[in-house]
Amino acid sequence: MTAVGFVGLGIMGSPMAGHLVAAGHQVTGFDLATEAVRKLAQTGGRTAGSVAEAVDGAEVVITMLPADPQVEQVVLGEGGVLEAAKPGTLVIDMSTIRPETSQAVARAATERGLRALDAPVSGGETGARQASLSIMVGGAEADFAQARPLLEALGKTIVHVGPAGAGQVVKAANQLVVGGIYALVSEAIVLLEAAGVDPGPGLDVLAGGLAANRILDLKRESMIARQFQPGFRIDLHHKDMGIVLAAARQAEVALPVSALIAQLIAAGRAMGYGSLDHSALLRVVEQLSGRPA
Amino acid sequence: MTAVGFVGLGIMGSPMAGHLVAAGHQVTGFDLATEAVRKLAQTGGRTAGSVAEAVDGAEVVITMLPADPQVEQVVLGEGGVLEAAKPGTLVIDMSTIRPETSQAVARAATERGLRALDAPVSGGETGARQASLSIMVGGAEADFAQARPLLEALGKTIVHVGPAGAGQVVKAANQLVVGGIYALVSEAIVLLEAAGVDPGPGLDVLAGGLAANRILDLKRESMIARQFQPGFRIDLHHKDMGIVLAAARQAEVALPVSALIAQLIAAGRAMGYGSLDHSALLRVVEQLSGRPA
Amino acid sequence: MTAVGFVGLGIMGSPMAGHLVAAGHQVTGFDLATEAVRKLAQTGGRTAGSVAEAVDGAEVVITMLPADPQVEQVVLGEGGVLEAAKPGTLVIDMSTIRPETSQAVARAATERGLRALDAPVSGGETGARQASLSIMVGGAEADFAQARPLLEALGKTIVHVGPAGAGQVVKAANQLVVGGIYALVSEAIVLLEAAGVDPGPGLDVLAGGLAANRILDLKRESMIARQFQPGFRIDLHHKDMGIVLAAARQAEVALPVSALIAQLIAAGRAMGYGSLDHSALLRVVEQLSGRPA
Amino acid sequence: MTAVGFVGLGIMGSPMAGHLVAAGHQVTGFDLATEAVRKLAQTGGRTAGSVAEAVDGAEVVITMLPADPQVEQVVLGEGGVLEAAKPGTLVIDMSTIRPETSQAVARAATERGLRALDAPVSGGETGARQASLSIMVGGAEADFAQARPLLEALGKTIVHVGPAGAGQVVKAANQLVVGGIYALVSEAIVLLEAAGVDPGPGLDVLAGGLAANRILDLKRESMIARQFQPGFRIDLHHKDMGIVLAAARQAEVALPVSALIAQLIAAGRAMGYGSLDHSALLRVVEQLSGRPA
Repeated sequence: MTAVGFVGLGIMGSPMAGHLVAAGHQVTGFDLATEAVRKLAQTGGRTAGSVAEAVDGAEVVITMLPADPQVEQVVLGEGGVLEAAKPGTLVIDMSTIRPETSQAVARAATERGLRALDAPVSGGETGARQASLSIMVGGAEADFAQARPLLEALGKTIVHVGPAGAGQVVKAANQLVVGGIYALVSEAIVLLEAAGVDPGPGLDVLAGGLAANRILDLKRESMIARQFQPGFRIDLHHKDMGIVLAAARQAEVALPVSALIAQLIAAGRAMGYGSLDHSALLRVVEQLSGRPA
Repeated sequence: MTAVGFVGLGIMGSPMAGHLVAAGHQVTGFDLATEAVRKLAQTGGRTAGSVAEAVDGAEVVITMLPADPQVEQVVLGEGGVLEAAKPGTLVIDMSTIRPETSQAVARAATERGLRALDAPVSGGETGARQASLSIMVGGAEADFAQARPLLEALGKTIVHVGPAGAGQVVKAANQLVVGGIYALVSEAIVLLEAAGVDPGPGLDVLAGGLAANRILDLKRESMIARQFQPGFRIDLHHKDMGIVLAAARQAEVALPVSALIAQLIAAGRAMGYGSLDHSALLRVVEQLSGRPA
Repeated sequence: MTAVGFVGLGIMGSPMAGHLVAAGHQVTGFDLATEAVRKLAQTGGRTAGSVAEAVDGAEVVITMLPADPQVEQVVLGEGGVLEAAKPGTLVIDMSTIRPETSQAVARAATERGLRALDAPVSGGETGARQASLSIMVGGAEADFAQARPLLEALGKTIVHVGPAGAGQVVKAANQLVVGGIYALVSEAIVLLEAAGVDPGPGLDVLAGGLAANRILDLKRESMIARQFQPGFRIDLHHKDMGIVLAAARQAEVALPVSALIAQLIAAGRAMGYGSLDHSALLRVVEQLSGRPA
Repeated sequence: MTAVGFVGLGIMGSPMAGHLVAAGHQVTGFDLATEAVRKLAQTGGRTAGSVAEAVDGAEVVITMLPADPQVEQVVLGEGGVLEAAKPGTLVIDMSTIRPETSQAVARAATERGLRALDAPVSGGETGARQASLSIMVGGAEADFAQARPLLEALGKTIVHVGPAGAGQVVKAANQLVVGGIYALVSEAIVLLEAAGVDPGPGLDVLAGGLAANRILDLKRESMIARQFQPGFRIDLHHKDMGIVLAAARQAEVALPVSALIAQLIAAGRAMGYGSLDHSALLRVVEQLSGRPA
């Protein structure tokens, strides 16, 4: 049993904290939304009235926050996790943020005698509920070893991918490939339909050859039917493409395809599709070809 | 048993014609390269000294040619297949060409009392040798029904995808997705490596989630190791991206991602990688990031 | 005085032929549209009932045709200019077509003992009417010297830019820069407006510095006011971007920005703006940002 | 005569502060580089040992800093300009930064009873030395009116373009157009040269028509000759394209061409050309076409 402080009980964090309680850990949770904290209490968790209270006495602190500013405030800021945690505490930030922010967290943790891992996830709300997330972990090997049993209560694929920030870089790589494949499948569908070809049998052929990919497997029927219930919202993928380009800038690489994809996803959001599933990138590609919904 | 005229006995056509002979058909082959014709004879095929001779007496004519100009000459040109074939002959062009050329072939065939299918393939030289090609067929349903037993000697996935030209459109859609995924995986690898992350475990995570795709399965190890033996040459993918953009122009759609991919593949060829496998697109992405081979 | 055969009396060719008549040349014109031929007669030109008749007895033949297929038919085809012209005739093709087609014309002309120049123009309908066209000429120096006095009746800037096809390459370079600047100015306007900045003073600053360009000078007011009367239609620029990419493919270069611009212009056409001025590219950029007309 | 505090005496700030001294103002300057401060003293300015000292007693404070982090520290941070300035002081930040940072400065200034303008410049080191800068000003009309006499000592074109942040948005629009035109001219040169056309006469034609632009006027000879002495370094343009994309993200617009240009400029930096003039974007385009330096 581990004493865990858990900050950030949103759509993702709430079921994750619940899995840790179910696994027998002593979880003390905090969120600005009191309803979320109450929900944790109902599952057997303890509740805290502040970040500092959640962190107090914890051996491990897990944070699951929306974006960089929240991590900067909750983890790095005044009265935040690093200030409140006792020496030796392991801080696992599972938020998807910029690698440079994760590295800043790691440096600040070390300066205060703490240890930090970045451990962003993929698999979305379903993965969080079913404890089937993929978890990409950056940080020291020994810290990863300590974290692993906890993370195994949350996901199925748990991989240590490198030093501080590496988890975020792998998550960024994942999101650029996922966003890009949605764009490619969208262009394929628009080309097929505009040429008078039934996209169903056409995509069946693609799914049977070198073009095969999971998005084609899971989403080609819903995309052809224009069903775009999330899933993973375009707004979130837009945030993630910002991270991809920030990671590229930090690594001093040029990613022309990713940059173009990022603009198409930004277009999806600007066109009003931000709350739809990211497969709604098809809507952007359609409109570019004068084929409105 | 069907009397088949086969024109184009190159790397693809030669094993394909051999499979038809092995399946018990009477195959009369022609190619400008006499060595290729001799090889067919050794496997039990008949040889012809001209297109007209190969077509003479055939119930079905199959053509497997490099590109649009050859189809225009061999099928549509003077002394070509359509001129030489007897009324009622079924012409199956298995070359990868522009949809509009396939449609011109179909129209010209109809005018002469012949029937035509476009039936481009994917699966490459290996697929041709192992009779495991995917075959995308455009044309009339009845003609497809007649062709199917022959095509089953050549491939495993044989799908009727629509009217004349539809086979080419589906092939184009396939090539845009394949080329695009190579570019995305390349950008992912360059980002990971430049950020100091070992790409092996990183791509393993991607391969286990929504980013999963066959290229990642088959090629991530060889790409990380910079092994680019073909496979399918960049020169050929460059030709195919020309078809993708011609198909888009004909269908009056805008495909920005495909257009950018086409330029990166053109860059690969211009940089001298035309004879390498298309996974060598990684070389282009590397050089754009100042990370030369 | 020169005996000139003139084939192609459309929006551009009609005033151009008129200028040659006015300059004292004996112009025999042909067009499939008989009304256009009659109009030439009214200005003092002679009329022909066929290409061959227009070419008969001409020292110089000028062609001004819509696109590659028309040049292939009218110049290279059966009963076309090259077949009908007497040895030594100078053929000046002023159509905007692919460099490779111009080179094919030049080669075919040489084979028949004729001489050919490619001489595409910029300046549009207004330039044709006002005899103020820019004319980019590819071909032999001596042939250019012979053509120059005639061309001086049609334009103000007449430049010999290189061997056969070079005129088309320069025209392609021109069109890629023009299309690209329209896209850039469009993105600038959308950014300014979406950020709540009055684009008028903003673009005034741009027009006074390193960003200064003729499109900003001539079109920023009409673009901000969304006035898109042609001018030069998006449909025509779409055709020209096809030439740009064909020229790039022939020259084995990769032009990523041009390729993306080509798709945005294709989008303009697909969205129904083909008959508007090319400055209507702004409409495409607006819609991508969810800011419909 | 105005009492001016001036923070940031680099390549740009140093001559600018000198012009204000020459115009009769009492200028107190500070920079971390003591040599820069000493130089100001030699021209008749006063020197300060800290930001607070430079601001002390100033009616107007001008800051000219490299990027967002420096503005966040020097203007917004502890002991910074806003903390040290007396109520009513006008703070003119002439740095090129993100619009959202300028807006944060303006809000923070208002909260402290101060007033702020964002006033980024274009024209580079030469413009700073010759007092010929273009200055794009965002903020309140009355504050602009007060600032104008000072700014007139620094530049020739001084335009109030809108509320807080508007100056930065216009600067961003300027940089996207400038960067884009460099890319377009680079693609034109590579196409011409690869097609065997002398780029000199070719670009002369472009410079005489609708494609005309100041970059073509000023830089086509040096670009053709591959002379890339700065001028304005690629590293700086890379920084500015980061601002362009941040401004686009804030304004919720999609700018595909700008995003691609940003990656090409990032490639220039990654390839080692960061210290060359931004016209060295030609090197990137060349290498993409396999035409190395």
